[in-house]
Amino acid sequence: MEAPFGHAGHRLMEWAIPTRTFTEMGFHGEQKGSTGIDETFASRWNTGIGAEIMGRHKFGPKPRPCPDESWRGWWGDNPPFHTPVVVLTHHPRPPLEMDGGTTFHFLDAEPADALARARELAGGLDVRIGGGTSTVREFLEADLIDEMHIALVPIFLGRGERLWDGQEGLEQRFAIESVASPSGVIHLTFSRQR
Amino acid sequence: MEAPFGHAGHRLMEWAIPTRTFTEMGFHGEQKGSTGIDETFASRWNTGIGAEIMGRHKFGPKPRPCPDESWRGWWGDNPPFHTPVVVLTHHPRPPLEMDGGTTFHFLDAEPADALARARELAGGLDVRIGGGTSTVREFLEADLIDEMHIALVPIFLGRGERLWDGQEGLEQRFAIESVASPSGVIHLTFSRQR
Repeated sequence: MEAPFGHAGHRLMEWAIPTRTFTEMGFHGEQKGSTGIDETFASRWNTGIGAEIMGRHKFGPKPRPCPDESWRGWWGDNPPFHTPVVVLTHHPRPPLEMDGGTTFHFLDAEPADALARARELAGGLDVRIGGGTSTVREFLEADLIDEMHIALVPIFLGRGERLWDGQEGLEQRFAIESVASPSGVIHLTFSRQR
Repeated sequence: MEAPFGHAGHRLMEWAIPTRTFTEMGFHGEQKGSTGIDETFASRWNTGIGAEIMGRHKFGPKPRPCPDESWRGWWGDNPPFHTPVVVLTHHPRPPLEMDGGTTFHFLDAEPADALARARELAGGLDVRIGGGTSTVREFLEADLIDEMHIALVPIFLGRGERLWDGQEGLEQRFAIESVASPSGVIHLTFSRQR
C-alpha cells in the first residue's frame, strides 16, 4: 500500500511529472507544466485515446483479498484517464463509474478479447495499453501493439519485472527510433513495420 | 500561384508529410502515416488547438489584387484547420465558412488585438500562430508567444524571409531544447521562461 511503484518509487516518472500533460492531471499542484521535449512525448499519452487497458495491479495493490469490491482503485475519486478503462482480472465485478468520465470495466479475458471490448468502448479512437509491465508484455507477445513509447530513465533498479523478457527479435516487427531528451531520458518510439 | 512556398517548395515539410498527423490531413493519399519521433512532434500541431492566426500570404498569393473576394484560399474546400482561423489583412472581408469546421475571419489588427479575437473564437483552447515567417516574427516581437516548435531542416535556401531577424536575445525569454530526429531534422522547443 505504501509503495505502488515498488522500490522504483516515482523515479521512473520524474521526467514526466513536471510536464504540462501530467500537471494537468493534477499531480503537481497549481503550477504550470513544462512544454519542451519531454512534454512533446508526454502529450501523446492521451492524444486521440478513447479507452485504456490495464492490469489488475495498476488498479489495486497485489496482496489485497479478492474479490473486495469496496476498493475503488489507486486513482482517487477523479482518476486521470477520463475514458472507459478495461481492468484485466480473474475476479470480475460490476463496472465502477468514477468522477470525470472514467469507468472501470473488469474483465477476465485474453488480450485479443480485451482489445475487442476496449475498441467497442473507445468510440473509434485509439486504445492505450497502460501497463503494468506484464500486461504490456502479454500484448506484445500477442502482436496486438501498433505503437509504443518507452521512456528509458538512467537509474539502476537491479530487480523488478522485466519488460523485454522473451521479446527477442522485437526489432524485426517494429521500426525503432530513439532520441535523448535534455532531461537525460531517452525516448524510444516503436512503430509496427508495414 | 505555382510556388506557394517559394523556391523551398515542399522541402521544408518533407519530414512531416509522411507522419500520421499530416497523412490524416489528406496530404498523402490513403497511406497510413508514420508514428515515430517526427510524428511525436507533428502531433502537437493540432493537439488542444481551438483557433489559428495566419498572415495574409498563408491564405492567398501575394500579387493578387485586393480585395478579390472570389478567392477562397490555397486550402481547398475542406481546409486542414477545422477551427476558426484569423487571417491578418489590410483588406478585411466577410467571414468565409468552409467545409469541415474551418471559418476564415479577416481582420486588420495588431497582434495583441488579433490574439484577443482568436481567443474568443478558440473556446478555451490554445491559439496557434500558423505563420508565415513575418507573422511569427511580429508575434515574437510583441512577446505574445508562450510555446514554439521549430523544425530545422538541413537544406540551404540562400534567400527568403528570415525568422530570426531582430530577435537577438530571444534565448533569455525562452527555455530552448533541441533533439535531432533520426530523419535528420532538428526539433527545437521554445518555452516561455517562468
